[in-house]
Amino acid sequence: MDETTTSRVEAFSDGVFAIAATLLILEIGVGAAHGDLGRELLRLWPSYLAYATSFLTIGIMWVNHHACFERIGRTDRTFLFVNTLLLMCVSFVPFPTRLVAEFLQRDGERAAAVVYGCTLTVTGLVFNALWLYAARGRRLIAPGVPQARVDEITRSYPIGPVVYGAGALIALASPLASVLVYLAITAFYVPAASLWTRA
Amino acid sequence: MDETTTSRVEAFSDGVFAIAATLLILEIGVGAAHGDLGRELLRLWPSYLAYATSFLTIGIMWVNHHACFERIGRTDRTFLFVNTLLLMCVSFVPFPTRLVAEFLQRDGERAAAVVYGCTLTVTGLVFNALWLYAARGRRLIAPGVPQARVDEITRSYPIGPVVYGAGALIALASPLASVLVYLAITAFYVPAASLWTRA
Amino acid sequence: MDETTTSRVEAFSDGVFAIAATLLILEIGVGAAHGDLGRELLRLWPSYLAYATSFLTIGIMWVNHHACFERIGRTDRTFLFVNTLLLMCVSFVPFPTRLVAEFLQRDGERAAAVVYGCTLTVTGLVFNALWLYAARGRRLIAPGVPQARVDEITRSYPIGPVVYGAGALIALASPLASVLVYLAITAFYVPAASLWTRA
Amino acid sequence: MDETTTSRVEAFSDGVFAIAATLLILEIGVGAAHGDLGRELLRLWPSYLAYATSFLTIGIMWVNHHACFERIGRTDRTFLFVNTLLLMCVSFVPFPTRLVAEFLQRDGERAAAVVYGCTLTVTGLVFNALWLYAARGRRLIAPGVPQARVDEITRSYPIGPVVYGAGALIALASPLASVLVYLAITAFYVPAASLWTRA
Repeated sequence: MDETTTSRVEAFSDGVFAIAATLLILEIGVGAAHGDLGRELLRLWPSYLAYATSFLTIGIMWVNHHACFERIGRTDRTFLFVNTLLLMCVSFVPFPTRLVAEFLQRDGERAAAVVYGCTLTVTGLVFNALWLYAARGRRLIAPGVPQARVDEITRSYPIGPVVYGAGALIALASPLASVLVYLAITAFYVPAASLWTRA
Repeated sequence: MDETTTSRVEAFSDGVFAIAATLLILEIGVGAAHGDLGRELLRLWPSYLAYATSFLTIGIMWVNHHACFERIGRTDRTFLFVNTLLLMCVSFVPFPTRLVAEFLQRDGERAAAVVYGCTLTVTGLVFNALWLYAARGRRLIAPGVPQARVDEITRSYPIGPVVYGAGALIALASPLASVLVYLAITAFYVPAASLWTRA
Repeated sequence: MDETTTSRVEAFSDGVFAIAATLLILEIGVGAAHGDLGRELLRLWPSYLAYATSFLTIGIMWVNHHACFERIGRTDRTFLFVNTLLLMCVSFVPFPTRLVAEFLQRDGERAAAVVYGCTLTVTGLVFNALWLYAARGRRLIAPGVPQARVDEITRSYPIGPVVYGAGALIALASPLASVLVYLAITAFYVPAASLWTRA
Repeated sequence: MDETTTSRVEAFSDGVFAIAATLLILEIGVGAAHGDLGRELLRLWPSYLAYATSFLTIGIMWVNHHACFERIGRTDRTFLFVNTLLLMCVSFVPFPTRLVAEFLQRDGERAAAVVYGCTLTVTGLVFNALWLYAARGRRLIAPGVPQARVDEITRSYPIGPVVYGAGALIALASPLASVLVYLAITAFYVPAASLWTRA
């Protein structure tokens, strides 16, 4: 497959990232309109927290996916399959987001937050698998890309699943704290993302 | 990041705008089919009003976002992050739209219209932050763009959050009037948008 | 606005068409699982009919929109606004589709089919307005396009709202017949679309 | 229609594939929060299975659709219509996916799995019709494409509906087994897809 193909895979992936992020809002819902709407909307804060955390996390993943593809010159069947697995994980995020939105501060919040954390951790692992497959021996790296720009991704990507996994463990103790950690990660990843952009 | 990257950010943003606008229709619903459907469909007019207002507002925002990017030559990490915040706001619009659709002319309409107005106001503020960050000292402006075309945006953008904020205040007195104001704004913004297109 | 802008408007529009068509499936639902699922799935045939009719209709509209833009060289603010109105209509289609899916062969089917027909008729009218605005005096037509290829659209587009309007009238007498007419129209429009492609 | 048009059809199709795949997650739902959420989430395994199977299947179809278009140089009205029919099938997949997610291991699982299998079989048949129409006498094949690369698709595509049809028959005996077969097919198709990519 030539570079054109790479850009079509990229466009398809971009579509999935954008749709998954935008679908998140469908998971927020006001229940039956009993009592004061204003108060009900305030009680929905876990939904807003879950929405913002997931939207920004998918946004960061998109930036990282992009950084990945900037260094990749061609694709092969294994890479395409692992990329599809990654998209399947990203596209799954609205489900645990709804769990957190619905159950945080209620019975079941521990299960909800653990599932949320595990989803992000698995997504991070698949992301690493995708990159390592492409970068190992520069298998799919574009010829003109300096090795230093390959290595900076290889070094920084493994941080993702480790931190996400830690968040999942925190969820066992405090579900709310774990979601706040995931929100904080998005703020941290933004500068981290700049490591490999020439900004 | 080079210009190619700019166009990918633009494509991703376009996707979010298009999806958010198209998802709006999912927020309109006929409840349980009790009584005459024809009459029920007429009673849904607040839903149609909310749908049209939000669709056109997102349409205007897309035109403005586009006008913004026509002048921008490169991006950096802060810009990318603020753009993601903006997309998070745009993608949130279906939620207050559903509130207005469901609660206008019912108990809770004040809360619904205020939340709707605040969402648009915050979106307008983030839009201004995005632009000011890019335009201040021509930080991210493309070299060939005349300063006059930068200044016309810098001057016209602050009108947005002011008018949207006024709408949110009107919502306290009359929720319906505030939604009609937002609908009227879309008609006003259309000619305003032409200020910076060479049409 | 130069040609690049035209292609961005086109890409945005394509997104709305694709999303509106794909969202249609969300409107089909099996209710509470009472009784035999197989029989319940057969009783859902109005949903399948509504889905196919709306999907193909949106597909035809997309082909027509495309044929339109092939002849257009630039855009202006009025054109952009009318195009946004058109997208607002296209994106509304899932709502009457759900009405037909839910109410055909039940109480309320007349109202459902009339709303469906009116939606398509209005969409057809906005489509004509968009084209006439662009074509009148070759206002936005690209210089190289022969007048004959402009005229063939100007002649064929008005057929749409007339036929759709007739369908809405038929709905008053027989809702089912009107939906079948809309389905038949998609089969007719396919060859009609070929009038202005060089296939 | 020239090659530009081909790439617009391709972009529109890509949009439908990406949206259909990403919408799948909306079909998974936790019912009323009765009892232990953790246990409820485990009991949802048929939903996860249905989600993964459909996501990967749509992913494979996208790769195949892409392989198709790599060999096609122009389109005509019939091709466009059959392609719209194919997209209508792909976009229908979330519906039987929800059936399998909801009914597997419950009353109605046989009907759910048969409908799922029939949807994939019909999709495979339409895919073959699309390709045969384009490839017969190299009707729409791009001039530079070697006949060998046309023939490898002509030979491998018919396998799809045969295997999917077999899966639908298996569903009569064991609904769960049939879904597992479809999941296994995605793993098989991935290497198969490589037959016609130069990876």
